Amino acid sequence: MIDIQLSERQEKIIDIVKANQPITSEEIAKRLSFTRATIRPDLAILTMSGILDARPKVGYFYSGREAMSFFTNQINSMKVSDIKSLPIVVDEQTTLYDAIVTLFLEDVGSIYVTSEGFLTGVVSRKDFLKNSIGGVDLNKIPVGVIMTRMPNIVTITPEDSIIDAAVKIMEHQVDSLPVIEETVINNKHGYKVIGKISKTNIVRVFVDLCKNN
Amino acid sequence: MIDIQLSERQEKIIDIVKANQPITSEEIAKRLSFTRATIRPDLAILTMSGILDARPKVGYFYSGREAMSFFTNQINSMKVSDIKSLPIVVDEQTTLYDAIVTLFLEDVGSIYVTSEGFLTGVVSRKDFLKNSIGGVDLNKIPVGVIMTRMPNIVTITPEDSIIDAAVKIMEHQVDSLPVIEETVINNKHGYKVIGKISKTNIVRVFVDLCKNN
Repeated sequence: MIDIQLSERQEKIIDIVKANQPITSEEIAKRLSFTRATIRPDLAILTMSGILDARPKVGYFYSGREAMSFFTNQINSMKVSDIKSLPIVVDEQTTLYDAIVTLFLEDVGSIYVTSEGFLTGVVSRKDFLKNSIGGVDLNKIPVGVIMTRMPNIVTITPEDSIIDAAVKIMEHQVDSLPVIEETVINNKHGYKVIGKISKTNIVRVFVDLCKNN
Repeated sequence: MIDIQLSERQEKIIDIVKANQPITSEEIAKRLSFTRATIRPDLAILTMSGILDARPKVGYFYSGREAMSFFTNQINSMKVSDIKSLPIVVDEQTTLYDAIVTLFLEDVGSIYVTSEGFLTGVVSRKDFLKNSIGGVDLNKIPVGVIMTRMPNIVTITPEDSIIDAAVKIMEHQVDSLPVIEETVINNKHGYKVIGKISKTNIVRVFVDLCKNN
């Protein structure tokens, strides 16, 4: 995969095709006062990159596609399901103390809370810290009391692109997003948690892409 | 800037040039059993991308440069100093309680600790939480007691690339890196903190790049 900076002549060719499509290479050459042979490499580059379409005996069309970089192509094809981590989940009745122990043992920054199999809340390290300094009895309060509760949770689905995930994390200033799937349990509709996307997942993709390129 | 996937013929041309440089386009065409006109667009693409060098009346050379993607080019040119945030700094004598309050008021995940102007430690939300559930008197213990102390701190300098920063964050599993600069205060050598790079900074770069491309 290589990168090429378009020349001024190639930019002009794109403009000519946009305004006059379909247009033959003879006509393009005439408008630029060049020979066909001169612009042949330019047309090759523009069709290979997918900016122009060439139809035999008709001429050149503008594909309407913006020239996409390799990076964006690669990223766009990556789905949340490709990079999600295992979610750490506790029940609403779990005490703050037990949930904090889980947080440390699993070495995660946030825990998802479920009730009867459905996602009901999210608790972060920040939530735990806030409650720990307040002098409450961590063994008496269940996580259900302090968690951020549905529908105020920012979620993502496995089919979403990782760009969507990164944008959501930044816009909502959250550390992670539960990856959810609609489900029916005992005739009740809701969401189950099937994964987690955190800033760490995104930074890992960034590092991998930089190393591979 | 556009991206092109090299064709099999273009890859062959690179191999031929590598093995026989300098080599004229006639010779390349002969070896491939094509006409010069056929391979002219290929040669144009390979010289425009900088993979081959063409010298008039001599022939084609292999530039030795790997074709770099636009993405890597863009990322490589970004330095820590371009994206760093303001660091939140407290003195070693600050009590855990006051440091935690600073953490919440500044809405950060970690705090850097200094003594006489020099970086001496880092305290994270995780460190604070661990100590808050232990039943210690947060008003009596200074951060200097619980912080990760120099030289066990992973740091970065303003001139480093953001790729280096991302790699360090992943390899050492830390939330942020203090950006440091050597300094002399009262004839003592040490490091002062001039910024912070966190996972959030890296995810922001990722989002910006995806949006711009």
